[in-house]
Amino acid sequence: MTPLILSEAQLRARIPLDVAAIDVVEAGFARLAEGGVVMPPVLSMHLPQLNGEVDVKTAYVPGLQGFALKISPGFFDNPGRGLPSTSGLMVVLDAVTGRVRAVLLDNGYLTDIRTAAAGGVAARHLARADATRAAIFGAGMQARLQLQALRLVRPLTHAVIWARDPARAQAMASELDQPGCRVTATADPAEAAAQADIIVTTTPATQPILQAAWLRPGQHITAMGSDQPGKNELHPDCLSRADLYVADRLSQTRLMGELRAALVAGTMPDGDHPELGQIIARQHPCRQSQGQITIADLTGTGVQDTAIATHALAAFSKDPDDA
Amino acid sequence: MTPLILSEAQLRARIPLDVAAIDVVEAGFARLAEGGVVMPPVLSMHLPQLNGEVDVKTAYVPGLQGFALKISPGFFDNPGRGLPSTSGLMVVLDAVTGRVRAVLLDNGYLTDIRTAAAGGVAARHLARADATRAAIFGAGMQARLQLQALRLVRPLTHAVIWARDPARAQAMASELDQPGCRVTATADPAEAAAQADIIVTTTPATQPILQAAWLRPGQHITAMGSDQPGKNELHPDCLSRADLYVADRLSQTRLMGELRAALVAGTMPDGDHPELGQIIARQHPCRQSQGQITIADLTGTGVQDTAIATHALAAFSKDPDDA
Repeated sequence: MTPLILSEAQLRARIPLDVAAIDVVEAGFARLAEGGVVMPPVLSMHLPQLNGEVDVKTAYVPGLQGFALKISPGFFDNPGRGLPSTSGLMVVLDAVTGRVRAVLLDNGYLTDIRTAAAGGVAARHLARADATRAAIFGAGMQARLQLQALRLVRPLTHAVIWARDPARAQAMASELDQPGCRVTATADPAEAAAQADIIVTTTPATQPILQAAWLRPGQHITAMGSDQPGKNELHPDCLSRADLYVADRLSQTRLMGELRAALVAGTMPDGDHPELGQIIARQHPCRQSQGQITIADLTGTGVQDTAIATHALAAFSKDPDDA
Repeated sequence: MTPLILSEAQLRARIPLDVAAIDVVEAGFARLAEGGVVMPPVLSMHLPQLNGEVDVKTAYVPGLQGFALKISPGFFDNPGRGLPSTSGLMVVLDAVTGRVRAVLLDNGYLTDIRTAAAGGVAARHLARADATRAAIFGAGMQARLQLQALRLVRPLTHAVIWARDPARAQAMASELDQPGCRVTATADPAEAAAQADIIVTTTPATQPILQAAWLRPGQHITAMGSDQPGKNELHPDCLSRADLYVADRLSQTRLMGELRAALVAGTMPDGDHPELGQIIARQHPCRQSQGQITIADLTGTGVQDTAIATHALAAFSKDPDDA
């Protein structure tokens, strides 16, 4: 068996952020709740002499033909060289023989898609069905993709962008504004939050941006920026103010999600908080009323990588050269 | 930059087990001793429902243009399917930007080479210069390659093979016997050991094969079969009988090498035993006399993977399609 080798260009052309991508990531989370998933701790290689790091994530998901190992380098001097900080690839192993089925040379593209898809899954299961207004914190690639994912699952008519750099927020708003969904920018994060049914935070903040006093009944918040122990986007009081807190993977959010900061601050007990997969699999109640405040704390899981890689392989399994 | 993709066939054709391979692995070990190497603990994914496992090893070695991440699946029902148990690949990342330089689809071939090369390095630095007789325990792929590596560094004239299955030992002897180096088989491991200047154990034994009473002055032993906490080829008394015990990586041999069993048995202190790289870099004395007994305990290190992957890349860097 010769492995299938796919380039970033092929993957970008064939694997968009769409409802199908959201569906496969949702199914991955559900399987995580149903048991049988093997997801070892992340291998993290710190390379201070290179101002870089490499993470390896993986998850075996029963019932899928393959499982992915993802190698994610982050080299933070790259922008000065005209290169993106992150790159990497996914390797898909056969779930029966362990042999290499595919190498997805995506340079991190599939990670962008599966990360945004998880935001779509969270909104689909936790945000009010009639949510029309979103606030996006941050103005990078994930800010754009998270807004796109929200529009796939909720009838958005308005979005407001806040970013530390107001010019970047304005640029993103101008880029995405359209008659079907008006997109504006604001320099005031409280104002952005006040207008929103759904708030998505996509920043690498190490000091909280979203304050508990800004929250109002009925809102859903997805925090997806924190994926390292030093990051924190939501004030710890937000978690205790919420009626429902949901982790993508509790063992991870304890260590590197918004839950970490709330545990340190003592605003949340270190209890048996539900995971997104349990909500999807109806093992735990979702939003119970229009007025509840819900929070999804997303740190990124190997299950998402295996889900999106399997999705990509299925798309190319018949005609790999046809992209 | 488009990554270089190399197949197993290309790698087999161009990267033999030769003195150059031994030299690069030796240089890797030396760099490990000199400091600056980043080698995180192995990511081990156990998949009992598939009778399989996946290991990920890596090491950043200062001064090299790239570093390897190796994905090694072992699926132990594969022989019943007509497939080898082990497979996998190496991914080489650029040491400046972290971007993917190459994907080496070797199905474990480069691991075979770098493992045998480490045996050659150990013999080169620890065995007597006039060693002419070898005993090989085991009759698999590594048994063949270890014998080949020994012949590259010592003037062998005779080798004797012992294996649990005498027919396999005899088949290997018949295959490799030649006028320049006579190869015979024996059903008696004590007899094999008695005749040898160098003993190499390459078995997956979980109960010791080599007994301390069989050792005689001047011998060098390389134990390379144990790479898991349950494996053990050398009776724990062998280690205390030796004048010099050398680990490939002490943090690993403590957990999964021959040292582990000797620590449990209490025959060796958990001291600051030298590593192979320290011997190479002359940070620690090597063999001090013709009569000393030396032991090299090899569990396999990420530094060897980065060394052999870099070596392969150098061989293909000018004309990748020329193999």
